[in-house]
Amino acid sequence: MKYVYRFGNNTTDGDRSLKALLGGKGANLAEMSSIGLPVPPGFTLTTKMCKHFLDNDEAFPEGATEEIEEGIKHLEAAMGKLLGDADDPLLVSVRSGAAVSMPGMMDTVLNLGLNDEVVEGLARKTGNARFAFDAYRRFIDMFGNVVMGVSHDVFEEAIGKLKQERGAETDIDLTADDLRTLVDRYKAIYRRHTGFMFPDDPREQLTFAIKAVFSSWNNPRAVKYRRINNITGLIGTAVNVQAMVYGNTGPESCTGVCFTRNPATGEAKLYGEYLVNAQGEDVVAGIRTPEPIKRMEEQFPHSYRELVALTNQLEKHYQNMQDIEFTVQAGDLFILQTRNGKRTGPAALKIAVDMVNERLVDPEHAVRELVEPNHLDQLLHPHFAEDEDYQDDILGTGLPASPGAAVGQVVFDADEAEAWHEDGKKVILVRVETSPEDVGGMDAAEGILTSRGGMTSHAAVVARGWGKPCVAGCGDIVINYNTQSFTNGVVTINKGDWISINGATGEVIQGKHELVDPELSGEFTTFMTWVDEFRTMGVRANADTPEDATHALGFGAEGIGLCRTEHMFFDPERISIMREMILSESEQERRKALSRLLPFQRKDFEGIFRAMDGFPVTIRLLDPPLHEFLPSEQADQQHLADALGIDVEVIHDKIEALEEFNPMLGHRGCRLGVTYPEITEMQARAILEAAVNVHQEGVDAHPEIMVPLVGTLEEFAHQKSIIHSTAQLVFEEKDAEIGFLVGTMIEIPRAALLADEIAEEADFFSFGTNDLTQLTFGFSRDDAGKFLPYYAEHGILESDPFQVLDQRGVGRLVRMGTDRGRSTKETLKVGICGEHGGEPSSVTFCYDAGLNYVSCSPFRVPIARLASAQAHLRERQEAAQANPEPVGVA
Amino acid sequence: MKYVYRFGNNTTDGDRSLKALLGGKGANLAEMSSIGLPVPPGFTLTTKMCKHFLDNDEAFPEGATEEIEEGIKHLEAAMGKLLGDADDPLLVSVRSGAAVSMPGMMDTVLNLGLNDEVVEGLARKTGNARFAFDAYRRFIDMFGNVVMGVSHDVFEEAIGKLKQERGAETDIDLTADDLRTLVDRYKAIYRRHTGFMFPDDPREQLTFAIKAVFSSWNNPRAVKYRRINNITGLIGTAVNVQAMVYGNTGPESCTGVCFTRNPATGEAKLYGEYLVNAQGEDVVAGIRTPEPIKRMEEQFPHSYRELVALTNQLEKHYQNMQDIEFTVQAGDLFILQTRNGKRTGPAALKIAVDMVNERLVDPEHAVRELVEPNHLDQLLHPHFAEDEDYQDDILGTGLPASPGAAVGQVVFDADEAEAWHEDGKKVILVRVETSPEDVGGMDAAEGILTSRGGMTSHAAVVARGWGKPCVAGCGDIVINYNTQSFTNGVVTINKGDWISINGATGEVIQGKHELVDPELSGEFTTFMTWVDEFRTMGVRANADTPEDATHALGFGAEGIGLCRTEHMFFDPERISIMREMILSESEQERRKALSRLLPFQRKDFEGIFRAMDGFPVTIRLLDPPLHEFLPSEQADQQHLADALGIDVEVIHDKIEALEEFNPMLGHRGCRLGVTYPEITEMQARAILEAAVNVHQEGVDAHPEIMVPLVGTLEEFAHQKSIIHSTAQLVFEEKDAEIGFLVGTMIEIPRAALLADEIAEEADFFSFGTNDLTQLTFGFSRDDAGKFLPYYAEHGILESDPFQVLDQRGVGRLVRMGTDRGRSTKETLKVGICGEHGGEPSSVTFCYDAGLNYVSCSPFRVPIARLASAQAHLRERQEAAQANPEPVGVA
Repeated sequence: MKYVYRFGNNTTDGDRSLKALLGGKGANLAEMSSIGLPVPPGFTLTTKMCKHFLDNDEAFPEGATEEIEEGIKHLEAAMGKLLGDADDPLLVSVRSGAAVSMPGMMDTVLNLGLNDEVVEGLARKTGNARFAFDAYRRFIDMFGNVVMGVSHDVFEEAIGKLKQERGAETDIDLTADDLRTLVDRYKAIYRRHTGFMFPDDPREQLTFAIKAVFSSWNNPRAVKYRRINNITGLIGTAVNVQAMVYGNTGPESCTGVCFTRNPATGEAKLYGEYLVNAQGEDVVAGIRTPEPIKRMEEQFPHSYRELVALTNQLEKHYQNMQDIEFTVQAGDLFILQTRNGKRTGPAALKIAVDMVNERLVDPEHAVRELVEPNHLDQLLHPHFAEDEDYQDDILGTGLPASPGAAVGQVVFDADEAEAWHEDGKKVILVRVETSPEDVGGMDAAEGILTSRGGMTSHAAVVARGWGKPCVAGCGDIVINYNTQSFTNGVVTINKGDWISINGATGEVIQGKHELVDPELSGEFTTFMTWVDEFRTMGVRANADTPEDATHALGFGAEGIGLCRTEHMFFDPERISIMREMILSESEQERRKALSRLLPFQRKDFEGIFRAMDGFPVTIRLLDPPLHEFLPSEQADQQHLADALGIDVEVIHDKIEALEEFNPMLGHRGCRLGVTYPEITEMQARAILEAAVNVHQEGVDAHPEIMVPLVGTLEEFAHQKSIIHSTAQLVFEEKDAEIGFLVGTMIEIPRAALLADEIAEEADFFSFGTNDLTQLTFGFSRDDAGKFLPYYAEHGILESDPFQVLDQRGVGRLVRMGTDRGRSTKETLKVGICGEHGGEPSSVTFCYDAGLNYVSCSPFRVPIARLASAQAHLRERQEAAQANPEPVGVA
Repeated sequence: MKYVYRFGNNTTDGDRSLKALLGGKGANLAEMSSIGLPVPPGFTLTTKMCKHFLDNDEAFPEGATEEIEEGIKHLEAAMGKLLGDADDPLLVSVRSGAAVSMPGMMDTVLNLGLNDEVVEGLARKTGNARFAFDAYRRFIDMFGNVVMGVSHDVFEEAIGKLKQERGAETDIDLTADDLRTLVDRYKAIYRRHTGFMFPDDPREQLTFAIKAVFSSWNNPRAVKYRRINNITGLIGTAVNVQAMVYGNTGPESCTGVCFTRNPATGEAKLYGEYLVNAQGEDVVAGIRTPEPIKRMEEQFPHSYRELVALTNQLEKHYQNMQDIEFTVQAGDLFILQTRNGKRTGPAALKIAVDMVNERLVDPEHAVRELVEPNHLDQLLHPHFAEDEDYQDDILGTGLPASPGAAVGQVVFDADEAEAWHEDGKKVILVRVETSPEDVGGMDAAEGILTSRGGMTSHAAVVARGWGKPCVAGCGDIVINYNTQSFTNGVVTINKGDWISINGATGEVIQGKHELVDPELSGEFTTFMTWVDEFRTMGVRANADTPEDATHALGFGAEGIGLCRTEHMFFDPERISIMREMILSESEQERRKALSRLLPFQRKDFEGIFRAMDGFPVTIRLLDPPLHEFLPSEQADQQHLADALGIDVEVIHDKIEALEEFNPMLGHRGCRLGVTYPEITEMQARAILEAAVNVHQEGVDAHPEIMVPLVGTLEEFAHQKSIIHSTAQLVFEEKDAEIGFLVGTMIEIPRAALLADEIAEEADFFSFGTNDLTQLTFGFSRDDAGKFLPYYAEHGILESDPFQVLDQRGVGRLVRMGTDRGRSTKETLKVGICGEHGGEPSSVTFCYDAGLNYVSCSPFRVPIARLASAQAHLRERQEAAQANPEPVGVA
């Protein structure tokens, strides 16, 4: 068994395929080395050695010590320096590295190899005594902490005390001599806390450090991290011992970072910066201003040419734009790290399309690897101009409920928002929370800001559906409707004042900041064509109006997965009829009111069918509890009473009678349709009459009628039978027939549990994962704001389950519902229409669960398309890796 | 293949083991006949014949017609009459009878064999022309309806019209001649609607009727019934053709019903009544007053002796008290039906114990068959005196929320109830709904009446826990607190007026009705000793106080399965500290208030541990949202503000801040303990200090600390770690240690889905099926009253899932949670502590699911004990039947 794998200096024992054995970092170093990159040489102790070590009372396996010695020899030969040589010392880093990244969870020791003699040599060699002693004191601190368990705080105390003595404000103000003193004090601390002298012998230091890093695999922090992140099946961590290189050994040295292409625009040109005679952290710290990378051509012509040459090699090898850290030590270029570079959405698209055009990658690779679904989000919404710096104007931060930036004058009332909008003003509607009565004003506003509610509050859901910027639940501000102002405790913003909001970050900003409109480049179209080539799962949109439907089509939706019919009742002309219906004393009165609503609904559906010609349209029957349609304000109630010619007390009584302790769990969904069959009848009639009407115009309508909130087969069967007998009537009256489906939302846990039964009657399922999440967790999305942030902060939940589908819990029900449903009806069409339908990781889950389609707000359709294609391509890639095609076999 | 099985007259082809072939009714008739009972003779056409008929275009199988003819011969011989003989006609009934009872779902034809000649013979023979023609017209109606599909309504119209013509008020007022006319009209209707003459030939009538009954197996009503009741695996219905016998052929005839023992008291004496020269329905109709059965000894000495002799034979054979229908036709006794007799609770117990003493049955049989769990309920509560007839005083009917009868003067305020109680008055507390603030007054009242809320509303749950009568959600009355009165629209009841309530029926009754206190007889003790011998699943009680715990022990509870700690905070002295805690601005202030609550809680727990010496006590940490503890009335809020020396606005603000849209899904359960760890700390400390304290007195305390509303492993682990570190501290401080468990309620669907994960940390599970039902269905138990009654009425739900566990949906989660939990921890202790723990069918389910115990309110403990023993015995019986022990095999 081989325990030590070398890398660097044209001697590489491993490659990236050995991740399980060498850990991620070790495999990566081996890979870079194997393609000829000048990485600082080193060696990796395998995870198997770690397992042996942990299983055998912290003893190294036989032969390991000898292999480590060979590793050191390799290092020394490669660097032309010797460990512990006081004239030209070799220093090394000792780092953990498991097969799965666990950032910060295990230990690292830097600058190993220093002792009292060597530090002097280092000072001489670099001409920088301060640097040498700073490295030394850091080494003692790290070693003491990592190897011997001395608290980092006691070292920090010592440096604090010294600074006080010297009147130094920061570490930088300490001189080389101060640091020399500090080294002595650190060593005394080390001795006091460990009972031992600080070890002088670099080989002894190394052995201790390796053992400590191996042991850190089982420190409580690491164990907990693995548990929380569900990391299982690993046997231990690898340890990487690598030569330290320094960019601060003199004017022949430098250090820098660069991208192989511009990460902001995607332009195919080396992009980055560097600092002469400096350490890596100096570039990041921003104390000195780095030089643009281009200047290296003059200052380090040789290294620059080498770097440029590496660029092409790296992109070709990694098939991606790279983010590179490098150091030039006394004229020698070292690549410290290369990884796929982060980039903006526009850059991602340009790079993907360019790399295909340059034949560096094929479209499949570009779709699978080069653009993240969320990159597309940036392309679809207005954003602040790049040079806008609004950091000092931030009034508070809420939830990033609907992306995009918006600027406008503050109004606190929906009607006023509409009026101002008509006067040509740009407004931001600011409300404690919004309700369906506010939709007119929300539509008129540039953006929406609420001080209460979560990512799936009314404001958030509606805004996302429209692609309108929204910051929700901004607890940093307090709204006072009486004074028509809001304040963050410092600044007060009055009606008419200008504010800006950033729906992608949740920031609320004082003043009028410059906006840039989104622009869909040619690359977008090219790329999305490729995406659809590799996509097998359907993508539909949630859309309630013909306008939304048209919009959704533009984004590539292949139908409507959720058309909510209740929004159609809030138009002023309709809401009064709706209220009349609700206030009816008898079925007959209700039917009368419903018959007046019918033409409105029919017209809406006709428009939607026309827009979605040829595509399926899933229409959900009335869902919210009826009290949502009654006016909540006293004045509006009086107004309604006057309009209907009844006493306002009647309205009060009705509102009180409809009030519920837990409206979420109350009289809504199909429970309305079951107890008031005439509502279902009217809606079924409106849908089917509309479908027949547009069919006669030559439009290809595919209505899919969806019954909400079904928990028992009987509820569904009851509603289905009403819909079918209504259809019979409509078809007879119109003497025409069209095909339609009747299916159900699966949003009640019981429906998922008994999906086999419900599938006997249902033509399709659509998972309503918003409500399903509420019920599976027992969380009210409107109230969970009281503890969810705490849960996220304290690691009780990994992410907000209303944003990212809880795959282990809610997802179990989704899989169960799908599998049980299909066990009854093999070809059952199954989709998802909750907010999760546009969230990339949830889309991947839906693909894995075998869903036929996802449905999301129009603006997230491109994201869902990409996530869906990637899920398919990754599955294909995994299958190919599991069963490689035979090569060269007869 | 044999298609026709005869019975009666000492010729019996079948017995009760042939239920699948002969149907329930057929097998029962065969059985009665086989043990020598004088049943009216007849024959049964098998279910296999039905299947052949349905599979073969309604053709009889070969040989069947001949077998039917033999059957008729058997009948004629047995009765000494001939089918179609105008002098002494034989009439028969044709009835369906499947292997599983489907009452009213399939068809029946009576009086078959009548035609124009025969009816005259029947009139002569019985001397009762009216009877003969009435039988004839009924036969035409049934035959027309069942065989030819003529609507029953058209016949009803005809009789209605005739009554009008004759000025007759009821059917009784029609004379024999009128009925003769009616027969002619019926025949005309038959001809008009079918196009055929009414068939004269009795054999033709019979063939038609048999075919119609077979066909009725697939009528939509029957198909739907089987689907709803999940009846599968049956091949068809059997048909029973049986001689009609009449108790109205003259003074030598009579008809009656009797029980082999007194069904009200259990006394071992024949009990019943009969009518001379009458039909069966006359006894039921109550037009003539029947004679007590004893008088038969004089009037029908021969038949009476025969009947008495049969009594012993029947009880011995059926091993149960029998309910017998009999007819004496011209001196010949016929047993029409015998079945296990319905009985009161006291009778059931007495009969069970007597029959064991008489060696008719063994204790196992007595426990398994002779007492229903709900019988015990009647023994445990006061009830109205037997001669109290309050039917005319009923003001309205609500939900039977907690059984027992109560009488008292009406008060509308909890404090007033307490005051009146102290003055020695008996009061009924009448509230729209109750809240935890009302518990003092509820305790003081004889009974509780609410006009709103369901079977699991606050009033209902608390009342059941105390065994106090309660009628909940009585929508028939309207309460007006201002006038201190309630009305049902007719009668108004004022404060101080006497009313009575019946918590077993939900009746609300005007006036003071006489009560009888329950008395636990010696039979109860004897019987319950047998019960426990056959019981393998534990039974605990839900109890919150030492008094309740003592009570529960008396009913045989083996520990506490749910001790709710929140009720402990409502005592006036404590509530103010609790409120102070809630109004605290900082953790420090909260801790201060909590430390003042600690001694109270500790004392409560000490008392409970003492009462439950040696038994486990499961204590649930704080569960309800904090706003439930703040006063809802303006005056109380002001009072609180004054007491705390703060502005009332502070309290308003806090209440508003704590308000939730859906409190059921809000900040409660372990979400409180996670965000305010100091609450969990205080409660854990109080529990463990109490346990150590009583341990030092020599009490054997077994605390099981239960974390409520867990949805994720992390929540549970978080709380468990607080409890364990608190335990560490307490044990160190007290220098003593006691064993304890930390487990969780499984009441969130996600917890059941991820039970395997949660079981890694949990010592036990307890299913909180109240909340689990709410979340699995998405029903709020406080709001579901708006549609659940409609659902029950329309067959959307079989029963209220808050009363009877929904085994297919919620039960699936219970099984899943249990199985997954035990897949991680094989020995995991699993119980149930929802309201379902005391409902017999749900207890059976818990047994089948492998639970270790059920827990229910003290008054339902005996019921749960019996249901649990029966579940075990039935399982044993089924196993024995599946694998009979070999008999006489070498």
